[in-house]
Amino acid sequence: MRHTVTIHKKDGSQAVMVDNDANLLELLRHNSIPFDTPCGGKGTCGKCAVKVVGIQDQPSDKERELLGAARIADGYRLACRSIITADLDVYPEDTAREASIITGGLKRNIKLVPSVTKQYVELAVPALDDQLPDLERVLSAAEPELTSYDTALLQELPEVLRKSGFQVTLAGIDGKLAAVEPGNTTDELFGAAFDIGTTTVAAYLHDLTTGECLAVASRLNPQRKYGADVISRISYAMQSKEEAGVLQSLIISCINELLDDLVQKSGIKHTGIYMSVFAGNTTMMHLMTGLDASNIAIAPFIPVTTEMMRFDPRSMDLHMNKSGVGVVFPGVSAYVGADTVAAILSSGMYEDEEISLLVDIGTNGEIVLGCRDWMMSCSTAAGPAFEGANIRNGVGGVKGAIDSVGQAPDFKYTTIGDKSPVGICGSGIIDVIAALLDAGVIDETGRLADEDETDLPEEEYAHRIVSIEGIRAFRLTAEDDRGTSVQIVITQRDIRELQNAKAAIAAGIETLVKLSGAGAEAVKKVYLAGGFGSSINMESALRIGLLPREFGNRIQTIGNASGAGAVEGLLSRHMLELTRQIKNKVKYVELSASVDFTERYVENMLFSKE
Amino acid sequence: MRHTVTIHKKDGSQAVMVDNDANLLELLRHNSIPFDTPCGGKGTCGKCAVKVVGIQDQPSDKERELLGAARIADGYRLACRSIITADLDVYPEDTAREASIITGGLKRNIKLVPSVTKQYVELAVPALDDQLPDLERVLSAAEPELTSYDTALLQELPEVLRKSGFQVTLAGIDGKLAAVEPGNTTDELFGAAFDIGTTTVAAYLHDLTTGECLAVASRLNPQRKYGADVISRISYAMQSKEEAGVLQSLIISCINELLDDLVQKSGIKHTGIYMSVFAGNTTMMHLMTGLDASNIAIAPFIPVTTEMMRFDPRSMDLHMNKSGVGVVFPGVSAYVGADTVAAILSSGMYEDEEISLLVDIGTNGEIVLGCRDWMMSCSTAAGPAFEGANIRNGVGGVKGAIDSVGQAPDFKYTTIGDKSPVGICGSGIIDVIAALLDAGVIDETGRLADEDETDLPEEEYAHRIVSIEGIRAFRLTAEDDRGTSVQIVITQRDIRELQNAKAAIAAGIETLVKLSGAGAEAVKKVYLAGGFGSSINMESALRIGLLPREFGNRIQTIGNASGAGAVEGLLSRHMLELTRQIKNKVKYVELSASVDFTERYVENMLFSKE
Repeated sequence: MRHTVTIHKKDGSQAVMVDNDANLLELLRHNSIPFDTPCGGKGTCGKCAVKVVGIQDQPSDKERELLGAARIADGYRLACRSIITADLDVYPEDTAREASIITGGLKRNIKLVPSVTKQYVELAVPALDDQLPDLERVLSAAEPELTSYDTALLQELPEVLRKSGFQVTLAGIDGKLAAVEPGNTTDELFGAAFDIGTTTVAAYLHDLTTGECLAVASRLNPQRKYGADVISRISYAMQSKEEAGVLQSLIISCINELLDDLVQKSGIKHTGIYMSVFAGNTTMMHLMTGLDASNIAIAPFIPVTTEMMRFDPRSMDLHMNKSGVGVVFPGVSAYVGADTVAAILSSGMYEDEEISLLVDIGTNGEIVLGCRDWMMSCSTAAGPAFEGANIRNGVGGVKGAIDSVGQAPDFKYTTIGDKSPVGICGSGIIDVIAALLDAGVIDETGRLADEDETDLPEEEYAHRIVSIEGIRAFRLTAEDDRGTSVQIVITQRDIRELQNAKAAIAAGIETLVKLSGAGAEAVKKVYLAGGFGSSINMESALRIGLLPREFGNRIQTIGNASGAGAVEGLLSRHMLELTRQIKNKVKYVELSASVDFTERYVENMLFSKE
Repeated sequence: MRHTVTIHKKDGSQAVMVDNDANLLELLRHNSIPFDTPCGGKGTCGKCAVKVVGIQDQPSDKERELLGAARIADGYRLACRSIITADLDVYPEDTAREASIITGGLKRNIKLVPSVTKQYVELAVPALDDQLPDLERVLSAAEPELTSYDTALLQELPEVLRKSGFQVTLAGIDGKLAAVEPGNTTDELFGAAFDIGTTTVAAYLHDLTTGECLAVASRLNPQRKYGADVISRISYAMQSKEEAGVLQSLIISCINELLDDLVQKSGIKHTGIYMSVFAGNTTMMHLMTGLDASNIAIAPFIPVTTEMMRFDPRSMDLHMNKSGVGVVFPGVSAYVGADTVAAILSSGMYEDEEISLLVDIGTNGEIVLGCRDWMMSCSTAAGPAFEGANIRNGVGGVKGAIDSVGQAPDFKYTTIGDKSPVGICGSGIIDVIAALLDAGVIDETGRLADEDETDLPEEEYAHRIVSIEGIRAFRLTAEDDRGTSVQIVITQRDIRELQNAKAAIAAGIETLVKLSGAGAEAVKKVYLAGGFGSSINMESALRIGLLPREFGNRIQTIGNASGAGAVEGLLSRHMLELTRQIKNKVKYVELSASVDFTERYVENMLFSKE
């Protein structure tokens, strides 16, 4: 006799034919509905409770005790104790949790299905009539099935099993048995996501059993001393293996310090971190993993690889569980890296029917245009002006950085943390240039104007326009302003630097939009990602022509979208798998070979009159 | 318009529907018919020649030049130049070679499909309009597809590609890109197979492009000094990690010396060896790979694992290509190891409809009974008597070892290499015991008889039966015999040792035959494997009761069947995969828990009268 068991899941129902007297737990497992049953299906742990309609016999005393009257009344039974003697309807709970990732204005709900999983098992103790070898004994208890294993764990396995009385926790990574730990350690399951920027490195610690973010930390990239941009770093690394080794050591130390920070802030143990996910530009990923970055710097700009990479944390001596895994996001090309793929992921543009534009402004500017069906990308050598580098008084988003500047004639400014000014960061630079344009202090070509061309009163002009080492400059703060001894100026050279940067980005956007043939009006959403994107004054950005004015009302700043994407890859193996699809879908447009880009770049060097 | 292409293969035909104007090379590749085309399908290398009926257009001049008139007349064309415009019949050649493995009296033809393959490719040089990263460029040229890669090769990849002008050889292992070498190295593809015995280690070097055996070498296992049997070795290793490390170092040194021997004998380079395959008993495999063997020695006898293991040659510093692979055959249990699985493989009993018996006599005695549908196995602690160990004048099969002994009263003997006698090896011991039984010098219980009980003349008896350190012994050779200074004797204790060994094996065989329910007459073939099996006098073996007399005419000695099985795994990934199936099919019978075995063991301690 056979019966029909209908399994009602969130995403649809499934009917399964089974023999009379089949066990419900086995049936459900066979149909990919996992239960973690420490008792091994002996009816004592209560972990296989499931709502079922149609069971003929009455709940046992043990079931009543384990499930309680309310759940019994609701139709819950222990699957392991349920023998199928009639047609049944089963309503397994969707046990996958969801985690919310908020990036700037975006919120994405990610189903929590991390690559790393844990399972506590109480194994049978070997006997003369049960001589399964240690590894095979462990693997046979794994659910879902683990099809391979880390050979390193075999060394300690016999001792771990025997000292723990064969009660152990299995850690699995992508179907591979990664670790066997004594006792029940299922509540220790954490992961870290990293955005390795040329200037800044950000780190996020998440609980992989709840999805919760437990701590965030960031540090400046210590490779900075060997150059502000990727080309300088590569030039340094190209000298010899020793110099390349220095850059790798620096970034690994930085990652380890961030891991220490995260552990300290959250109170967890280093060994609780089983997975670290990395996004960053292609050069950063090469330097971190010890790959030769030389050919990224010279035409035709060829990375060693932009495939997703997995590595053994032991190979970099990372401060995390040695049996865990390191994952580097895939990239698209030498200058559209894993950070851009991560940003595409967290923006959600890859699944949008409508066309979006993603502009990620960091030390370089990466631009992606497209939708569910196609995507194209380019990179512009915007330079690190927006991160405060190559600007006379430029600084990153540190305390005391001038982050907003008002209109003439006062040019009122604010500083981060309301501290004495120490310099000016990206958002401040954009503001001050916009204000100077409005006041006619900078003309269309970017030249600091003569007194009679500006709206400024004569005295104000004399006070503000100074000469520093033979270069004209606009003095934003005096030496004694708000308790600082630093005079903060915007030099003519700084303005040129910014013109280059904004022209590169604007020309890149225009080139992609033209290439796509879609037209600017088809672009329904514009995502502005990057460290400085969140604090930027959009009106100023449009004023200086960083973004086309026609996109004005469609722009959304989404902050560190790369970091958010790395977190998504940490929380969900499906999201990780999606990055491969994104890598393969995004077409790369080489701007250095584009006459169109060069023309637009020159045009965009000018400021608009407005 | 669509056409039907019928692909005629050795194992059947396959019809495929294709669009008009499809390329034949692409179609064949898509249907798993590999071609190695260094020209990249440009019609210049001629490597994609295939016999095809139905092509509409005439062969081009280039095709005529590359294929020659005879092949053109036979219907051969270049697949890469063939555009499908009508229904076609294609006859791809079965390019896999076969290799013959001869083991004792057995000959098996193995299709040559090694796990390691090589392919020479001439890659396009990167350009601004072809910016594929180095790894992706290499992987895209691989046929058949390689789906993963060894991260270590990324370090050197940019330099290898650029120094070779992007003309490289790819080494693939089981679908993984293992190495990228400059230039064409496809003719350097070798592998080694090892049988790691408790007493003797044998090594075989094969050319993986032809299957040919290039060299054979063997050495005594240097772990011998820590005990003749596996239990003594484990006891030594159990003292601490240091002692276990000593045993691992010894066997790795021995393997490396054998690799050196093979390289020296064949004139190849160490770096040409990409794969090493290991068979051996479970303890040897544990000690070699550094696994804790302690629980093998104590009930209930649990190995860490008997799964197939793959390891990085770097992890053991093996004298072979660092990008190659080491493979350890799977085993069945603590005492039926990878060597037995290898012997089952090379005997072919796993695919035989009829029931076979395999007896592998080494330091232990493993017995397998079964056929295509079922197999069962056991291990008897026979002790190393047959390898000459624990026998007063026992030696292995070395020069000067007495390897055959004639009947009374002369007891004429031969020695290996016709040298002065240095001791007696397994086949000699069996002969002398058989002769002594026939002459009544040993009685049914194994006791050295008194003078009046024997057939020997009085003088001869007085001369032959001596007392050594208070133990009675039979003197086979005098001190001055054939220029030796050694007196070779068989002591009463040696006889007991042999009785134990032969009783264990005979009882094991009887227990399996009984358990199977098949009956001795159903056993159609008896394979006697093991180092000493080839030189054994079968009549003597039957006389002493090592094998049941009723099997007399069905016995075939197959020599080092374990080594032959390891070679098969080296030459064919299908054979390697078969070992997993064999592992899973063979049921292990624990004799220490069998009352039946104990009874039969006691019975078999007696010699038959005849």
